[in-house]
Amino acid sequence: MLSSLKTLVFGRAIANRDARSEKFGVLRGVAAIGLDGLSSVAYGPEAMLTILAGTGLAGLNVQIGIAVAIVLLLTALYFSYLQTIGAYPSNGGAYVVASDNLGSYAGPLAAAALMIDYLLTVAVGISSGIGALISAVPSLHPYTLSLCLIVLMGLTLVNLRGTGESSTFLAIPTYLFIGSIGAMLAVAVAHAWASGGHPVPVDPPPPLPPATQTVGIWLLLRAFASGCTAMTGVEAVSNGVNSFREPKVPTARRTLTVIVVTLGVFLLALAVSTRAFDVMAMDQTQPGYQSVLSQLTAAVFGRGWAYYITIAAVLAVLCLSANTSYVGFPRLCETVAKDGYLPGEFAIPGRRLVYSAGIVFLTLGAGALLIGFDGVTDRLIPLFAVGAFLSFTLSQVGMAVHWRRKLRASQTGQTTAAPNERKRTLVRLFVNGFGALATGIALAIIIVGKFTEGAWIVIIAIPVTLMFLRAAKRFNVEVDRRLLSGCQAQIDVRDHTAPIVIVPIRRWDLLARKAVEYALRLSPDVTALHVTKTQGPDVRERIGRLKQNWQKYVEAPVLQNGLRPPRLEIVQSEYRSLLTPILDAVKSIGERDPHRPLLVVLPELVEENWWGYLMHTHREARLRTKLLQYGGPRISVVSVPWQLKPQTPDEGLQAENS
Amino acid sequence: MLSSLKTLVFGRAIANRDARSEKFGVLRGVAAIGLDGLSSVAYGPEAMLTILAGTGLAGLNVQIGIAVAIVLLLTALYFSYLQTIGAYPSNGGAYVVASDNLGSYAGPLAAAALMIDYLLTVAVGISSGIGALISAVPSLHPYTLSLCLIVLMGLTLVNLRGTGESSTFLAIPTYLFIGSIGAMLAVAVAHAWASGGHPVPVDPPPPLPPATQTVGIWLLLRAFASGCTAMTGVEAVSNGVNSFREPKVPTARRTLTVIVVTLGVFLLALAVSTRAFDVMAMDQTQPGYQSVLSQLTAAVFGRGWAYYITIAAVLAVLCLSANTSYVGFPRLCETVAKDGYLPGEFAIPGRRLVYSAGIVFLTLGAGALLIGFDGVTDRLIPLFAVGAFLSFTLSQVGMAVHWRRKLRASQTGQTTAAPNERKRTLVRLFVNGFGALATGIALAIIIVGKFTEGAWIVIIAIPVTLMFLRAAKRFNVEVDRRLLSGCQAQIDVRDHTAPIVIVPIRRWDLLARKAVEYALRLSPDVTALHVTKTQGPDVRERIGRLKQNWQKYVEAPVLQNGLRPPRLEIVQSEYRSLLTPILDAVKSIGERDPHRPLLVVLPELVEENWWGYLMHTHREARLRTKLLQYGGPRISVVSVPWQLKPQTPDEGLQAENS
Repeated sequence: MLSSLKTLVFGRAIANRDARSEKFGVLRGVAAIGLDGLSSVAYGPEAMLTILAGTGLAGLNVQIGIAVAIVLLLTALYFSYLQTIGAYPSNGGAYVVASDNLGSYAGPLAAAALMIDYLLTVAVGISSGIGALISAVPSLHPYTLSLCLIVLMGLTLVNLRGTGESSTFLAIPTYLFIGSIGAMLAVAVAHAWASGGHPVPVDPPPPLPPATQTVGIWLLLRAFASGCTAMTGVEAVSNGVNSFREPKVPTARRTLTVIVVTLGVFLLALAVSTRAFDVMAMDQTQPGYQSVLSQLTAAVFGRGWAYYITIAAVLAVLCLSANTSYVGFPRLCETVAKDGYLPGEFAIPGRRLVYSAGIVFLTLGAGALLIGFDGVTDRLIPLFAVGAFLSFTLSQVGMAVHWRRKLRASQTGQTTAAPNERKRTLVRLFVNGFGALATGIALAIIIVGKFTEGAWIVIIAIPVTLMFLRAAKRFNVEVDRRLLSGCQAQIDVRDHTAPIVIVPIRRWDLLARKAVEYALRLSPDVTALHVTKTQGPDVRERIGRLKQNWQKYVEAPVLQNGLRPPRLEIVQSEYRSLLTPILDAVKSIGERDPHRPLLVVLPELVEENWWGYLMHTHREARLRTKLLQYGGPRISVVSVPWQLKPQTPDEGLQAENS
Repeated sequence: MLSSLKTLVFGRAIANRDARSEKFGVLRGVAAIGLDGLSSVAYGPEAMLTILAGTGLAGLNVQIGIAVAIVLLLTALYFSYLQTIGAYPSNGGAYVVASDNLGSYAGPLAAAALMIDYLLTVAVGISSGIGALISAVPSLHPYTLSLCLIVLMGLTLVNLRGTGESSTFLAIPTYLFIGSIGAMLAVAVAHAWASGGHPVPVDPPPPLPPATQTVGIWLLLRAFASGCTAMTGVEAVSNGVNSFREPKVPTARRTLTVIVVTLGVFLLALAVSTRAFDVMAMDQTQPGYQSVLSQLTAAVFGRGWAYYITIAAVLAVLCLSANTSYVGFPRLCETVAKDGYLPGEFAIPGRRLVYSAGIVFLTLGAGALLIGFDGVTDRLIPLFAVGAFLSFTLSQVGMAVHWRRKLRASQTGQTTAAPNERKRTLVRLFVNGFGALATGIALAIIIVGKFTEGAWIVIIAIPVTLMFLRAAKRFNVEVDRRLLSGCQAQIDVRDHTAPIVIVPIRRWDLLARKAVEYALRLSPDVTALHVTKTQGPDVRERIGRLKQNWQKYVEAPVLQNGLRPPRLEIVQSEYRSLLTPILDAVKSIGERDPHRPLLVVLPELVEENWWGYLMHTHREARLRTKLLQYGGPRISVVSVPWQLKPQTPDEGLQAENS
């Protein structure tokens, strides 16, 4: 019925066999999978500078040191993930690694952290993308939140259609981003070098705000915590090793290398350039806001075509990084739902092979975050880092346990490993152990440094989500137990008499006719029910006419064919709703023979086009839902479809024959 | 299933007999019905001043003249509506008056104008309420749109619960508003008088912006057009004469008099006071925004408790005026839907006797307006006036035609009216004719003056809505014609064999058991369908087990009872969705006997609590919808309810007996 509208908006339904996924080489892998990690360049350094904004020139000096610390942490993470790729060559996501190695709490804990991380990737991607846009077009500043919500709606529609995301489509903005930001940073660093540290900007950034704070350890920790958001997204390669071309492990590793090296070089160059050009973060809530990248690009290139291309690439890549969550989140939910930790609805692919429940949930969550934090990136950043680093840490700890088990197995002689192999495993244990320690310390810094700024929300949300996941698991296990418990017995066919059939009719029309004819096929015991609202002369006349029609068009032909004629019952009701009187009448009819089930026949108008679907009242569909809900186990409902379109001659003939 | 969550959020279902409406006297009538009209004081004058903001002191002088013109127009409208109340003592809304007197286009045209007017009342009420709030608490300025959307959500929830809005509840903020604004204006005018026109403000308003424009005729017309929004809502009394205590016509007229006199006095006093205190409108998009009422109240009272009480009353009254649309809009939709101009869904009361479809539609529309115009009142005003004045004009023209018909009837002698009565009708014709002319001219000014500022959107939206309403009418007439056309004939009972019954089963569990037992009651021809996805050793083993169970638990007992045993069919499918393979299999089973209908049995898990409802997959419900949608007229579906809760001993006994 809704089909043509649905096809228009969401596209044609897709068969399973069409769901072939393409395989990436390094170049396409960087575009499709690296996008999320690389785009962090657009908000991570800015988040760090925001914390330092009150310290003036001193802040611009220390940020280079913080950037070096972040790149070192990134390096540790890089070596850790190289190993994860080797050990889990199909899917090494934090959820899988934690479930495999860390017992029944860690899996759902990682899932909770990842789910919150996905929500925030969407919110931060969109808000910082719009931040780039309003830097280029300042008159849009008052519309920040509206623009964020419009982008969110667009992403939702595109993903309900199913992305069929070709890596070619993603490659253009990604490489435009790498190319333009890379060129801008190269020019900036070259100028800084040539001018001895003080290049002349083409379009000077706003003057540094006066230094009102001094740089202390507490401020450094907070700046580091904010800057860590630059590392979000680097785990993506390990989640999807399966998507790479054979030999997939080396291809995935090369891809990760390209991503991490690019990201690290960008972060360092950006730190040096902002120092050289005196670029400081500004307040996004104030009109005239310019993102750090926008200020720097204008200073290096001026506000010509090169500036606008760079900003367009930043906007595109950030929106697409939000899009990667729309691909990843529903898939994570599917995996988690198949393990029983989420309602089964999340594991059911829709007509375009997308998991609609996950997409809708992601949109609602990200929309709430955007509205709650008014579309301002800076307010979302404290929440963002916690989920990401919790999943990093769980994944690293999981890997460390993985290697330790391997080591023990070889010690107890369960496997006959060469001494060389043992040594290699020890090194691996060390690398992942170090990764776990480093990310764990970073996580602790983030929680402490960002607690009052919003991290507390995530600290509450993660255990709440975890509780929900575990409760869902218990529920699913219990349902299965009950459904399977009593079934190992012969079915009961001693009594197989037809049910008592009841047909609610509103007036004598084609719907009533079809329903009565159908009811007579199902049972010899048929009662039609007519519910009328109030008394009055017009009501009496209408009922008289209905009774006359009933006698003439129903009773007469049934008697002629020697069958028991169906009865017509009139029920009066003071309720506006139909449910209560029908339910009462059905139950009182059922009392005549308490051992037989009751079956209500409801003709349902089925429409071919969405227009007709919207026009109808769906009174019958609602009545069916409520009869099933409140009627108890004895009342079943049969829905007989009825189409409004005129019969074709063929169908008319068939109807004659039957 | 969802019942307990629903009860929590939306309240208990209400029976028809509980829907007694209370009757108002004048005092309560002013509160419950006058609220909308009186609250216009908070945005109408401000909208006028916004147009004049660039003209400085000259603008503050001419605005008094414009206010006088608006009050004169209000007076004309007042006398017109006094007559409407007498002529239509049950419901004299513009839709009814236009439908009655102006032919088949005018009714839906008035409905379209009113519907758009209701949408804008919600949007403007909320946005100017939040405008008052951010005047008092400037730090909330960046959250303007978020706050608007939160209020909108709150109103939606309250109204889906059903308002049961007692006039007592409304009386407190309304009289607080009348009292505090009245006191403030009285003090302001008294100070102005005593000081010879230049009183000293307690808390001075921001300095007047420099005059960059001169006052011309075009500016005056645009200011008048914006100021006319101060009159919106005065039609409310004529819509609801039925709600007044007997004798209802005089009571309603007295109420209207109180409302109009209060509104007129407020508008004039406000014009004089803003002139005296040099208060000019400010730009709501800029931080530091202060509404006109906030500036004036601070100038008169200072920013003490009197200021905060006044602003709180303004905020409350504006939000409640948005609430009146939530009462009026669904009722209008119900009337229009009963006439066939809207889908029937709008005429179906929900479980709490509210018309949920209308409420949801209103929220979506007002939400889109708020997001599209960023929650800024000033941008919504140009759209607002068009719908309101179009419905004023249609209502007045309708009344004029009404009196002319009466006059003609008395001329042609159809009624024997006294000459006195004739004269009175002539006066009435004149009054409503003048009202029509005045509001018509105002409408023309509004359309011309506001066209480029946004009125064009409404100029497009009204005919589009009108087309939709008329198309809906045609559709409804056609459906009725088809449903009634072929029914005057005897039902066909020559063939009443049972349908072929098909039971899709996923595995052998209690659901499958119950479905098979039920199927055997309906027909001797039962086939169970098992759809399996891929081939492989585990699949083969699972199918083997299923066949074994089938033989042991189904075939054996059926054969023992001397019945025809149901068959088990295994269908392989490469689709992820179940629909296509099941549909194909059902159709191929149907080919065995092309004259019999097909009936698919689907056991449906029914949950008592919302938690369980959310947990289940609803796979069967979705399958049922799709079978009905794509299966053609031959395939019906029976839903057999199955509850998860453990059986009570009684039910167990009953199951034993049956």
